[in-house]
Order: sequence, then structure tokens, then C-alpha cells
Amino acid sequence: MDKSTLIGTVTGVVLLGFSIMTGTGAGAFFNVPSLVIVLGGTIAATLIHFPLPDIMAMIKVTKKVISSEPVSAKQYIDKMVDISKKARTNGLLSIEEELNNIDQEFLKVSLQHVVNGTEPEDLNNIMEAELSLMTERHKIGQKIFTAMGNYAPAFGMIGTLIGLIKMLQNLDDPAAIGPGMAMAMVTTFYGALFANLFFIPMGGKLKQRSEEELQFKEMILMGVASVQAEESPRVIQNKLLAFLKPQERENGENAEQ
Amino acid sequence: MDKSTLIGTVTGVVLLGFSIMTGTGAGAFFNVPSLVIVLGGTIAATLIHFPLPDIMAMIKVTKKVISSEPVSAKQYIDKMVDISKKARTNGLLSIEEELNNIDQEFLKVSLQHVVNGTEPEDLNNIMEAELSLMTERHKIGQKIFTAMGNYAPAFGMIGTLIGLIKMLQNLDDPAAIGPGMAMAMVTTFYGALFANLFFIPMGGKLKQRSEEELQFKEMILMGVASVQAEESPRVIQNKLLAFLKPQERENGENAEQ
Amino acid sequence: MDKSTLIGTVTGVVLLGFSIMTGTGAGAFFNVPSLVIVLGGTIAATLIHFPLPDIMAMIKVTKKVISSEPVSAKQYIDKMVDISKKARTNGLLSIEEELNNIDQEFLKVSLQHVVNGTEPEDLNNIMEAELSLMTERHKIGQKIFTAMGNYAPAFGMIGTLIGLIKMLQNLDDPAAIGPGMAMAMVTTFYGALFANLFFIPMGGKLKQRSEEELQFKEMILMGVASVQAEESPRVIQNKLLAFLKPQERENGENAEQ
Amino acid sequence: MDKSTLIGTVTGVVLLGFSIMTGTGAGAFFNVPSLVIVLGGTIAATLIHFPLPDIMAMIKVTKKVISSEPVSAKQYIDKMVDISKKARTNGLLSIEEELNNIDQEFLKVSLQHVVNGTEPEDLNNIMEAELSLMTERHKIGQKIFTAMGNYAPAFGMIGTLIGLIKMLQNLDDPAAIGPGMAMAMVTTFYGALFANLFFIPMGGKLKQRSEEELQFKEMILMGVASVQAEESPRVIQNKLLAFLKPQERENGENAEQ
Amino acid sequence: MDKSTLIGTVTGVVLLGFSIMTGTGAGAFFNVPSLVIVLGGTIAATLIHFPLPDIMAMIKVTKKVISSEPVSAKQYIDKMVDISKKARTNGLLSIEEELNNIDQEFLKVSLQHVVNGTEPEDLNNIMEAELSLMTERHKIGQKIFTAMGNYAPAFGMIGTLIGLIKMLQNLDDPAAIGPGMAMAMVTTFYGALFANLFFIPMGGKLKQRSEEELQFKEMILMGVASVQAEESPRVIQNKLLAFLKPQERENGENAEQ
Repeated sequence: MDKSTLIGTVTGVVLLGFSIMTGTGAGAFFNVPSLVIVLGGTIAATLIHFPLPDIMAMIKVTKKVISSEPVSAKQYIDKMVDISKKARTNGLLSIEEELNNIDQEFLKVSLQHVVNGTEPEDLNNIMEAELSLMTERHKIGQKIFTAMGNYAPAFGMIGTLIGLIKMLQNLDDPAAIGPGMAMAMVTTFYGALFANLFFIPMGGKLKQRSEEELQFKEMILMGVASVQAEESPRVIQNKLLAFLKPQERENGENAEQ
Repeated sequence: MDKSTLIGTVTGVVLLGFSIMTGTGAGAFFNVPSLVIVLGGTIAATLIHFPLPDIMAMIKVTKKVISSEPVSAKQYIDKMVDISKKARTNGLLSIEEELNNIDQEFLKVSLQHVVNGTEPEDLNNIMEAELSLMTERHKIGQKIFTAMGNYAPAFGMIGTLIGLIKMLQNLDDPAAIGPGMAMAMVTTFYGALFANLFFIPMGGKLKQRSEEELQFKEMILMGVASVQAEESPRVIQNKLLAFLKPQERENGENAEQ
Repeated sequence: MDKSTLIGTVTGVVLLGFSIMTGTGAGAFFNVPSLVIVLGGTIAATLIHFPLPDIMAMIKVTKKVISSEPVSAKQYIDKMVDISKKARTNGLLSIEEELNNIDQEFLKVSLQHVVNGTEPEDLNNIMEAELSLMTERHKIGQKIFTAMGNYAPAFGMIGTLIGLIKMLQNLDDPAAIGPGMAMAMVTTFYGALFANLFFIPMGGKLKQRSEEELQFKEMILMGVASVQAEESPRVIQNKLLAFLKPQERENGENAEQ
Repeated sequence: MDKSTLIGTVTGVVLLGFSIMTGTGAGAFFNVPSLVIVLGGTIAATLIHFPLPDIMAMIKVTKKVISSEPVSAKQYIDKMVDISKKARTNGLLSIEEELNNIDQEFLKVSLQHVVNGTEPEDLNNIMEAELSLMTERHKIGQKIFTAMGNYAPAFGMIGTLIGLIKMLQNLDDPAAIGPGMAMAMVTTFYGALFANLFFIPMGGKLKQRSEEELQFKEMILMGVASVQAEESPRVIQNKLLAFLKPQERENGENAEQ
Repeated sequence: MDKSTLIGTVTGVVLLGFSIMTGTGAGAFFNVPSLVIVLGGTIAATLIHFPLPDIMAMIKVTKKVISSEPVSAKQYIDKMVDISKKARTNGLLSIEEELNNIDQEFLKVSLQHVVNGTEPEDLNNIMEAELSLMTERHKIGQKIFTAMGNYAPAFGMIGTLIGLIKMLQNLDDPAAIGPGMAMAMVTTFYGALFANLFFIPMGGKLKQRSEEELQFKEMILMGVASVQAEESPRVIQNKLLAFLKPQERENGENAEQ
């Protein structure tokens, strides 16, 4: 699982839990109707805003981003350098037997095209189209999270207004005013919390991950093109290492995200 | 009708209805003067902001977006592949008899141009101009919804200020303060609700639908151009399938929006 | 006068008037010092923000936009087609006698250049420069309205702060608190009202009108260029009709804005 | 001095002064600690935000913008036309004796290059680099004012929070609550006032002036290039007049900013 | 250390310290739970938002920016002019002995490439790639600070809501209301303070410094390219001086940032 997302979520939840639990009145923070208005309203607005298939796609992309292990780009560079050596010695067709050992789908498909004899230009067009499709899918995910990050506080405020309007009509019992306002404000609290500890940061993580993945796959694409052009393994390695950050170039295998 | 818009609207209305109805004081939420200020003010500002024909066009576009059935792009790809087979066998003029079976206006008009012998470049120019006109029409719709999403909360606040100013001048009767403030706040509630459950999400849906429709019609345009160039049906199919999302490529007929 | 601006302004003023007048306390809404702070402050900030000639230009442009009748583009297309027929028969110099019947300044000047024998490229450069000057003038108008739409609520808040600070120093008389706060809030009310029912929508209308006028004049420019190139009247008509919205193409004369 | 800046500042200060002075409690508006927090905090944040030389440059640019007299572009057009006549009669070297009569630095330097025999292309590159340096310097000034326009209200709020927190801990004496809150709110008042009557409008004026100066100097550059190319004085005049607004073309000498 | 950052931080802290310390109630401003919510919440959200290596990189970049001495660009121009003289006399290989005297890493690496005989175009590609990598690293730092500048006030508000909700449930003891609200508001105070006196200004400083460093290194790159092309030392000096601000050109050695 994505480490920083995990650490961040645990830290945030623990901190807020503590802060709510200390002193009195923790019960007020668990209020199902408030939760229903904020989450329900946010989901309702999101459904009106986006087509259903886009929302489905976002859920899938999010799951993948959260559960994905950090990729060791260095390891794939080594792999491609190995393959390029073999291809230079035994011809491009000899790559075929390597394909079964490759678990990275994008690299596998690209190399299969090389084996099949797809023209370099066509190979590039096909794989770039695939990449732009992926970017598009990720972008819709970011857009949905951003929208939810705006709707959540709005419905938090709407819920608070409902609570206040109800309370204001029954001011006869002064003892009920405090708890009434407290309950009204819990909805604002939920809206701010979901937006700032979940929707907005998750949209940001999706964006960062999407940029990393794009860069990783463009590196693979360049590597495969070099293999196909039968460039020297040394040149290929240098070209691909330029994609890594300085510290990753040394021992990419330990790079962690 | 657009499914997710329907589900979202029903969910949102039911949730808020419940939340308003439970407990006491539901009556305060139905306040005609507040409604008149928020909706009336928003409409007045929108009329000053946009020319009348643009507003009319927006209403038409919105109706179409809400009521439109999801398009099965896959089905039209099959259609175009069929037509390309016939055209390769019997010549481009043989397409004419197919035209009556086509209910998609854009495809029909494009093919009519092919039958009429319009030059490929002219055909492309004419249909692209049509597309950019459509995009422009949709964009004005999004702009109007976005503007309304800004005006509604503003007039909600204006209504609340009116209510508060009136109330503050009559503080003699303490029993009237609560209901007075409640009534003032209902206007803010309306403004936030209309903006976040209607205007902003509808503007978003219009944007998403517009992008989908544009992509669909550019697919058709590419298909017709390929038919006119008498490319092989197999090649045409591959080119057009690239427009679909992976899951749609298999069984596009069941794709639902 | 611009119809939708008129309808919007009347609707907005009537609605708010009603809402203020009903019940008690209408008097509080007419407060000259509040009006002076909001409008005066907004104008002062605008004077610091923009050079005087730009503000003068904005006033002129706004007057023109509000009072302008909707242009019937169709009518000018017919005119240009007529002229093109005459020019093809009697030569370009025969246009000269038509010039007196043309009340559209931009069309007249362009045709005068044709009669004078200005080279097509020069004609295009001269008139495009004129158009970009016009667009620039309109853009400064939009910028000023947008800035005023930001300053008005800010000075509304400043006025309210002044009122509250004064009131808070004299809390001895509880009966004065209500009216004091009411008076303070009227300034916020004015700021929100001017921004949302005047400055922001007027900036928007200026923008929409400017885009329409630009499109109209680019149509005229294309028409005059075609006349100068002595293209066939039929071709000219088709080219120019593409600038119109579908419903205008039929009976442009009745098009109303 | 810049007229509209002067008028705006005087109007704004007089209006607010009146509004503060009328009635009771004017004393509350003069509060040194509040002033120190708002201005001091804004300056502190600005120092962290921008490097010192940029802030120094901004102060210099602002002084120049406020004190600058409006430039009569028309007068410089006449000048350049005169020079072009002389140059066509007596050769480019004859410009040298004119140089001492020219007080506009940019024009002088450009013409000196012409006399020195700098190649047209080099002349253009050198002066355009100078212009882009100037634009950069002005842009940093606008950025700093915009940032200050954001920091001032933020520190206004921070000061108000400090005041409120202090006041809330001493609620024993009800008579002190009003003045305490008043004092707290004065800080918000200062923040809003400095932002909206000084920082934001001054940033705007800098932007407008910068655009004007850029346009003026590009006109001069084009004029000098035409002189160097020994174009006809008539052509030069027409080319340069196109830079002026219609009303300035007639009697540019009286144009006021 | 960066001077203006130091001055700004000291000024800001001293001012706010004074303002908090004067009068009574300074103790309320030191509240560990409030601090934990604001900083902890901001860090948690940032961890969810950005991958861990990006956050690590930001810390490193920030340290470097704060501790970096202002660079004297003038001094490096002199250096490069010296080297160009030597290279023109003794050949490019003679640069090698100079390399040990150069402490600027970027200049050293570039010159090493010249000595090694790297082709001019390759040299440019390699070093530009290095520059764009650096810009990318700095940009992620700015993005993180901007995000933190948004999260801090949000968690300030969340903490205040928690405090208020707790307080509202125990309104029995009126004497506890004031301190309770004070404690709740301290969290908002922290959020606003961290955002406006640290996160947002630091993001801005990073941006300005990044632009300066980029410009400095592009100057070096141009200088090295000119050395490699064996241009005249005079020409090189003129080209490089154009990168400096007017006042720096005279005595760049004393330029301070």
C-alpha cells in the first residue's frame, strides 16, 4: 500500500480522535444524520456532475493508486539493457522467450509489438495513444476528487443551516440551545474534515502518481524504441538513467515512494 | 433520461427532505419570499449577464443533455464498417440507399456529402465547423450554469441580510428573534442548495457530456473519411475502436452512461 | 436598448423592492452614508487602479452596449451578396455609389478601401488592427467592471466594520443595539447588491457583446475580401451564412438579442 | 503626479474620514497596536516571500509610476517624423546633432545606436532585451502588491483573533466587552482598508502603466527602425499613429492620463 | 543565510510576541493541543497529498534556499571571460587546469564537458535536461508549501469547530464560556499564522529563488557555449552582462540578495 497515504491517514485520524476524546462531550461528534447529509449530499452532487462510468472509473483508479507498490524504475532499466544485449546478439525475435518473465504489462505489450515486427512509428503511435487514454482516465479521477472537495464543505454548511434554522424556532428552552448549536456545527466539521483529510489530498495524490506513472511509461517506451533500433546497451542505459532522480541512479532498487 | 443525473437528484432531494422533516420546525423551510429572492435574483443577474438568445440556447441544450439516452458508440462503429464493406464492393454511390436507415443526424449528413461527391478536404472543413459551432453552444451553457452557481449564494446572502436588517429593528419582542433569524437564514440555505445541488453540478454534467459528444462525432468523422478513402473495413474498425474505453471495446452495446 | 439587460434590471429591482417593502423596517434600507461609503469607496479604488482615460472609455463602451439594437447579421450578408453581384458585372469601382446607402461604419470603411484599390493584404492588416484595438478597448471595460465587482463587497464590509466598531463602544443603551447593527449591515447589503446585480453581470454582458461584435465584424471582413476577390455571389453567401446560428440562417431579420 | 491615483486616494480618504468622524467613537479607529500588527505583519510576510532587491526595485518603480507625468505619444511621433526628414536629406549621421534635444532616454539610446551604425537586427535585439527587462521589473512590482493585498486582510484577521482571545478571557466586566470587541475589529478594518484602498489598486495601476509604457516604447522602436530604413516620413507617421487611440490621433498633445 | 527571510521572520515573530504579551491573557496563546491539531493535521493531509520522496526533497530544497548565500553573478562572468581568454590563446584543453579553482558545480561540470570534447549540441542538451530536472524539483517544493498554506487554516477551523462543539455542550457554567471560546479560537489563530507567516511566504521565496537560480545557470550555460565556440572575450562579456540588472552591472561583487 502507498506508504505516505497510510501514514498520513493514520496520523490524521489518531490526532483528531485524541482531540475529540479528551475532555467531555465526545458523543456529539458521532452524529449519523450529519454524516448522511454531508456524505449523501456530496455523493448526490457528484452523481449529477459526472457521468456514472467516470465515477466508476475513478473508484477503480483510486483503489489502484492506494494499493500500488512503489515501482523500481531502476530494475526495469536493467531489464531493458539485458534485453537489448540479447537482441543485438540473437536478433529481435529472440526477445520473444523473455516475454514470459516480464510482469510489467506495458513493457510486455510494447516488446510483443517489436517481436511482431510493428513499424517503429506505428509502435510509438499505438503506445502513446494508450498513454494519453490512461492520462485522461486519471485526470477525470482528479477532477471528481476536486469537485467532492468543494461539495463536502458546501453540504456541511447546508446541514448546519438546517440545524440552526430548526434550533432557532425553539429558543424557549435555553438549556437546549448549546447542544442544538453543537449538533448543527458537527455537520460543518464533517464537511471540512472529509474535504481536507480525504477528498482534496487524495485528488492531489492521484495527480502526483499519474505524473510518475506517465514518466515511467514514457521511459519504457523510449527504452523499447532503442531496443528496436538496436542501439548499444551502454547508450540505452545512459538515456534511461536520465529519467531518474540523482539519488535513484545509484541504487534504484531501494527507492521507496 | 440521463441515469446519474436522475439518481443524484433523487438521492439529494430525499436526503435533504428527510433531514428537514425529522424533528420540529419543518415549516420554516418552505418560504415563498425567500425562494423568490434567491431564484428571482439569480435569474435577474443572469439576464443582465448574458444575451437572451444565449440563455434560450442553454435551456435547449440542458433539456437535450438531461433527456438523452447514452449513445452506443460500438453500434455506430459496426454500422460504418458495414457501410465501408458495401462501398468497397458496389462503389460509394451505393451508400445512398443506406441513408434512410441511419437515425444519427451527424453520420447521415456526413455520408450524404460522400454520396454527393464532396471533396474529402471540404467535407472535413464543413463538418469540423459544425462541431466547433456545437462546442461553442455547449460552452455558453456551462458558462451560464457556472455564473448561476455564483449568483445563487450571493442572492441567498442578500436575502439573509434583508431579513436580518428587518429583524434587528424590532428586537423588542425576544420571542420573535429566533423565528426571525430562522427565516433570514432560509434564504442562505436556498442559495447554497440551488448552487450545490443544481447549478454547479449541471454545469459540470454539461461539460462532460459535451466532451463525450465531441469525441463521438470526431470518431464518426474519422470513420466517414475512411469510408470515403475506401480503406479496408478491418483497418477502419481498428482505428475507430481506439476511441472506446477498454471495457467498451468488448461489448459496447451494453455500455451505459 | 439591450432587452435582456432591461428585463434583468427591472426584475431584480422590483423583486428586491418588494422584499424590502413588505413588513416593517423598510426605512433602514435607505441610508445615504452607507451608500456613500460603498459607491464612493468603490469609485476611489477604481480610480487608483485604472488610468482616467481607461475609465472614461469604459463608460462610453457601456453606454453603447446598453443602448445598442441587436444587429441583423443576415441583412448585411444579403447586402454584401448584392454588392458582389454588382461588382462582378460593373467592376469594383461601381461599389462606390453603394457606399452612401450603408450605415454600418465598419463595412463602409472596408468597401471604401476596396474602391480605393488598397491591396487585399493591406486591407486585411488595416482592418484587423482596427478590430484588435476595439477588442482591447472592450477588454479594459470588462476588467474595470470585474474590479468594481470585487471592490464593492469589500467596501461594504469596511462600512459594516465602521458601523459595528462605533456601535460596540456604546452598548449602554440596549435599545440602540438592534438599529445600530441593522445600519451597519446595510452597507454589506449595498456592496453585495451592487456587485451581483450590476458590476459583475455588466462585465459579463460586455464580454458577450464584445465577442458577438468581433464575430460580426470578422464576417464582414471575410465578405469584403470575397467581394474584392470577385468570388461568385453564391459562394460568398454560403461562406457568410456559416457564421450564423442554425435558427438565424432561415430568417435572420427577426433574430433578436 | 498621476492624476487618477491622486483623485482616488483623496476621495477614498476623505469619504472614510467623514464616515469615521461623524457620530461618536472616532477615537477607536486610531489604534497604534492594530496598525503595527497589520502593517508589520504584512511587511514581515512580504520580506519572507520576496528577495530584498526585488522589494527595493518595487519601491522605486512605484515612486516612478505615481510621480510620472502622462506621456504625449503624439509629440514623439512628430519628433521622429522630423528626424526621418532630416535623415533622408542629410544622411543618418546628421541625426547626431538632434540627440541633445531629446529628453526621452529610450529614444535617445536607440537613435545613438543608429548613428553608431548598429545593424538593424542587432538594434532590435538589444532594445527588445531592454524592454523585456523593464517588463520583468514591473511584473515583480505587481506580484509584490498582489501578495501584500492578500497578506493585509490575513494579518487583520490574525490581529482580531488576538484581540478576541484576550477579551474572551476577561468577560467579568460586561462594560469592557463592547470596547474590547471594537478594538479587536479595528485590526480587520485596517487590513481590509489597506488591501482595498492601497495594495490591490496600486498593483493594478502598476500593471496598466506598465502596459502603456511597453506600448509607447514599442512604438518608438518601430519609429527608429523606420528612420534607419529611411522610409518616407509620411509612411512613418501613418504607421506610428496606428498606435494611438482614435481621439489621441487628432490632438495628442492634450491627451491626459 | 537568506537575509530577507531572516529579517521577515524576526520582525513577524517579535511583533506578534509583543502584541500577545501586552495586557493580560498571554497564557491562552500557548496551547499544545491546538498546535498539535493544526500542525499535525496539516502534515497528515500533506502526507496523503504528496508522495514521501517529494516531501523529503522539499525539505532539502528549503534548507538550501534558506541557508544559501547570495551569488555574485558578476564574479562568474569575470571568471568565464578569463577562461575564454586563456582558451583562445592556449586551446580549449588548457581549461582543464582551471577546473580545480572553480567551486560552482554547474560551471565546473559544463567546462569539464568542453574539455572532454562533448559536441556543443550534446552539451546543451545534457545541461538543459539537468536544469529542467532542478526546476521540476523546486516546483514540487512550491506546490507542497502552497498546499500546506491551504491546509493550515482549514485545520485551524476544524480545531475551532471541535473546541466550540465541546464548549456548547457545557453551557451551564457561564464563567467557562469565555475561556472555552478563547481556547477554540487559538486554533484558528495558529492556522492563519502558520499559513501567512510561514507556508505561503516560503512557497513564494522558493519560487523567486528558483527563477533566479535558473537564470543564473542559463547565463553560465551561454557563457560556456561561447567559450567553446571561441568567441571573443569582449563579446562574451557583453552577452553575459545583459543578464544582470542595471545596478549590478557596475559593481556586481557587492550585489546582495
